[in-house]
Amino acid sequence: MKITDLQTPAVLVDAAALDHNLDTMAAALPGARLRPHVKAHKCTALAARQAERGHRHFTCATIREMEGMAAAGLGDDLLLANEVLDARRLGALDARVTVAVDSEATIEAAAAGGVREVLVDVNVGLPRCGCAPEDAGRLADRARSRGLEVRGVMGYEGHLMLQGEVADRERGVAESMAKLVAAHRDVGGEVISAGGTGTYAINRAATEIQAGSYALMDTAYSALELPFRPALSLLARVISVSPSFAVADCGLKALGMDHGNPTIDGAKVWFCSDEHITFAAEGAVQVGDFVRVLPAHVDPTLAYHERMHVVAGDEVIDVFEIDLRGWQAAEGGAQRGEAERSR
Amino acid sequence: MKITDLQTPAVLVDAAALDHNLDTMAAALPGARLRPHVKAHKCTALAARQAERGHRHFTCATIREMEGMAAAGLGDDLLLANEVLDARRLGALDARVTVAVDSEATIEAAAAGGVREVLVDVNVGLPRCGCAPEDAGRLADRARSRGLEVRGVMGYEGHLMLQGEVADRERGVAESMAKLVAAHRDVGGEVISAGGTGTYAINRAATEIQAGSYALMDTAYSALELPFRPALSLLARVISVSPSFAVADCGLKALGMDHGNPTIDGAKVWFCSDEHITFAAEGAVQVGDFVRVLPAHVDPTLAYHERMHVVAGDEVIDVFEIDLRGWQAAEGGAQRGEAERSR
Repeated sequence: MKITDLQTPAVLVDAAALDHNLDTMAAALPGARLRPHVKAHKCTALAARQAERGHRHFTCATIREMEGMAAAGLGDDLLLANEVLDARRLGALDARVTVAVDSEATIEAAAAGGVREVLVDVNVGLPRCGCAPEDAGRLADRARSRGLEVRGVMGYEGHLMLQGEVADRERGVAESMAKLVAAHRDVGGEVISAGGTGTYAINRAATEIQAGSYALMDTAYSALELPFRPALSLLARVISVSPSFAVADCGLKALGMDHGNPTIDGAKVWFCSDEHITFAAEGAVQVGDFVRVLPAHVDPTLAYHERMHVVAGDEVIDVFEIDLRGWQAAEGGAQRGEAERSR
Repeated sequence: MKITDLQTPAVLVDAAALDHNLDTMAAALPGARLRPHVKAHKCTALAARQAERGHRHFTCATIREMEGMAAAGLGDDLLLANEVLDARRLGALDARVTVAVDSEATIEAAAAGGVREVLVDVNVGLPRCGCAPEDAGRLADRARSRGLEVRGVMGYEGHLMLQGEVADRERGVAESMAKLVAAHRDVGGEVISAGGTGTYAINRAATEIQAGSYALMDTAYSALELPFRPALSLLARVISVSPSFAVADCGLKALGMDHGNPTIDGAKVWFCSDEHITFAAEGAVQVGDFVRVLPAHVDPTLAYHERMHVVAGDEVIDVFEIDLRGWQAAEGGAQRGEAERSR
């Protein structure tokens, strides 16, 4: 199938760039040194390619992602790097499950939900989840007293991921990891889980790196000197042309917009509507032309789409379902049943 | 079921506000005077509530929305208010189908795809689709020469939807509609389709208004003096609390972000991550608390979610599937089959 046979907008993944990225990271952080984060792609087929390269332990951001990975046979060692107040769906999984905890309430939830292993999540500078470093030991004791195995700590230096100057990034990571290592001394366990695509090469304290964006790469990372290539674009089709602008069929509902407008090579993007992108091209544009739209933020872009088309040139060589989207239990779960009864 | 039993983040729709909005619009624009736009909610269950109030003709933005409406028995008169280059899926529908055309290529696509009826889409000031007003008559002739029935014209004065001053909005609408009425004289047909929630009461030229947002209401419209009430919120749960901020489980992938950050009453939102919202609350917040997050833009927010929960107070009284999402044919279509073979 040619890409021109696809219903637009369609997610395209360049097979060669994807392979390059996966191979490059597998060489830098082999096996369990990398715990790929599936939130970046929400796709078990892509996760399977990561597993084929030796990474069998994965990071997830939602319970739904954990369930989907377990169902796909990728449940050797799944970390939910996020806090939850109801862990029953996690406790029911046929997989090795570890969940982040950063409070007594989340420890109680893990124990009550039947989860057996936890990491203590430590705030290392990003104002998000994570306990104060000096509180980590107390929480670890608490978790053990509730019968939980404490595998170690995690901490995400997300505030440094896009720091442009390498020296500043290195200094920042060292400061953040000093907090995490101190917490780890109080907590114990084998694991220090941290890092991301922007810091994978300079975070030397972590026993495992949670990078995800490296597989498809975000345009936001392109300013950093990273060895990964942009692999993702959206195929759109020009549906209307005026003297000063053109319109293609890829809008707000096909694009994560929190980082701003997408880009089109050789054109200036004016604005996006629900199903349209209005742009001014440098060259001639005709109704029916195909254009490539580069989203400003990959993760929330993919969460809108049902599948990605793996391409070699203009040929679609594989189709990956983006099957980890949403938050409810997958089809067949209780809430699905309710929805159907109400129709 | 109580809302506190829901997996968060969850879309909540206030039943009383929804009913008020639907009733208020049905009184203002009864029956076919309103052609509700389903892109605002992407939900056949909600469209059925609009149909129960007398609006049997609908507006869609995508082929997928058209297919879903037809399959739900809501195909009396469906308008795709958008241009397409491949109309075969439309021509195959068991429904009355009209599609917008604004060029020779889109007329050819409609004819080749087996669509029988069109509206000529006219640019009335928004730089998006639509032909120049003076070209509308020529395109209508062209469409008729290809055997298509030309029902009239459409034009969307979207650049005026959020114009705060009523007098300015009225003057702008009058100017835009003068262009559309002039084009209509050249085109002929019964239909002048235009308007939206921001102009439904002041657009006196249109024979039918394409409003959609009125049903759930966008916060962006709240500055206008409209008689509709905000009906939509996202239920999130506080998963982590620090001395100066708190974090709830509703992030970028649950929110349309093109209009900026969402809001939380009684709190200042700091930022959103993929699955988190970090905020500073005026009052005390505890881990496990439920909070209501108000998205800055409803349409792209709903496109992330599988269903909306209709609530009366804290009781979930109905569940509507958001079943018109995406662009591919619904399950069972050809592309779905391919994806499955590739797994």
